[in-house]
Amino acid sequence: MFSHSETIRVRYGETDQMGYVYYGNYALYYEVGRVELIRKLGVSYNDLENQGIALPVVAMEIKYLKPAKYDDLITVNASILEIPTSKITFHYECTNQDGILLNTGKVTLVFTDITTRKPIRCPQKFELLLRSQFNE
Amino acid sequence: MFSHSETIRVRYGETDQMGYVYYGNYALYYEVGRVELIRKLGVSYNDLENQGIALPVVAMEIKYLKPAKYDDLITVNASILEIPTSKITFHYECTNQDGILLNTGKVTLVFTDITTRKPIRCPQKFELLLRSQFNE
Amino acid sequence: MFSHSETIRVRYGETDQMGYVYYGNYALYYEVGRVELIRKLGVSYNDLENQGIALPVVAMEIKYLKPAKYDDLITVNASILEIPTSKITFHYECTNQDGILLNTGKVTLVFTDITTRKPIRCPQKFELLLRSQFNE
Amino acid sequence: MFSHSETIRVRYGETDQMGYVYYGNYALYYEVGRVELIRKLGVSYNDLENQGIALPVVAMEIKYLKPAKYDDLITVNASILEIPTSKITFHYECTNQDGILLNTGKVTLVFTDITTRKPIRCPQKFELLLRSQFNE
Repeated sequence: MFSHSETIRVRYGETDQMGYVYYGNYALYYEVGRVELIRKLGVSYNDLENQGIALPVVAMEIKYLKPAKYDDLITVNASILEIPTSKITFHYECTNQDGILLNTGKVTLVFTDITTRKPIRCPQKFELLLRSQFNE
Repeated sequence: MFSHSETIRVRYGETDQMGYVYYGNYALYYEVGRVELIRKLGVSYNDLENQGIALPVVAMEIKYLKPAKYDDLITVNASILEIPTSKITFHYECTNQDGILLNTGKVTLVFTDITTRKPIRCPQKFELLLRSQFNE
Repeated sequence: MFSHSETIRVRYGETDQMGYVYYGNYALYYEVGRVELIRKLGVSYNDLENQGIALPVVAMEIKYLKPAKYDDLITVNASILEIPTSKITFHYECTNQDGILLNTGKVTLVFTDITTRKPIRCPQKFELLLRSQFNE
Repeated sequence: MFSHSETIRVRYGETDQMGYVYYGNYALYYEVGRVELIRKLGVSYNDLENQGIALPVVAMEIKYLKPAKYDDLITVNASILEIPTSKITFHYECTNQDGILLNTGKVTLVFTDITTRKPIRCPQKFELLLRSQFNE
């Protein structure tokens, strides 16, 4: 398992008239979580795209337990539990500044050739970096 | 089963640099789908809130099959398959103007007292309107 | 002058905890307004990009007079007052379903070569279509 | 003058298919800028709302000079140049990690009674805190 926690401050424009973070905005928070997770691994998403690899999302699941509110400091914990094949799955837990678990989720993306838009295998360098973390 | 199809034009600001609709924006399209579905039933979400009932989302699942692109005309088909208890689940299918199935999903919301923020039963009027549709 | 009015239903996710449409979301409504305006002229923004022309925004101004609320039906009136050079300016007025003027604004975009990212003149076909409207 | 610089990482979902940050999303970045500016002054926006004061935006102006791109580290510099009356104006400059000036802007908000939705004077505590900064 390889994981990372990133803190995100809730913006006013991310709330809705219920006074909660709009349920769709967690997709953005989850994105930040996985981008910083792979940056910690030594890979930037920009580098992947520059190498001709895109990572469209193919599945998302979220269970919302408690709402986040304006100005909350959300901790997004993102984890990779398995060595990716052509797909990579990130597991998520969001908590607020009081340690309350807000939601749990899962997002699966597929390594894709940016030109042909066809699935490809996880880049070897990425796999090796991840394996070295799994072995620690 | 009670269902409704609503057409949504993809906005430029809803795309990302991959040239696809950003995966989180389907939450907005799904919202439009269910709001128009219940409006067809004779209920506006605004009325519910005015009666002291909020409907926060407690679960969302999306499987992304094909990307939507800028200026696409997306048909969001939303369905209710079961009489709600304190929870109500909407099932979704999005297709584009060429009839390509883009994604399928499911969103569950909970009827909530807007003051106490506690779950309540589905309002009787809502249930009756839905039952009358199910019987047709 | 060439103008067009487009109706937009406010989405829940576009409101904020004040119960108003978040001020930044009018950029999306204005985008819809100008896209439908030029479609009425016989030009799609997609066609422009396919011809190698991008239209980044270089200036925006909005005066907010009254708030829009959830489920409001906003009429976005977009107008072109002058023949574009390398720049094109759209003037806006948004009103709600009660005829209340919500805001007025102005957005300027620049015709740009999509490859060199340098400004270019307004495409001749576009200018001619617009002139024929101005002369009516 | 009282000012503050806040750094914001561009999210993938904030880009559009041109590969630029969508022009409307700067409203969110500007919001972060002013919220952190007033926090530095010792005031949280949440506190204002809890005291019955809302701050709707009444005017926004942005000049876009250069685009921001995915993963850029944007520095949002927000300044207050004048003691607020019932209105408060924030002046903005956004630069990227290379020191390139991306855009300049101005947002005016109005102190409002959250119940009556009528304008009120800038809270005295806020004015005093600001005056003490201006005098330094």
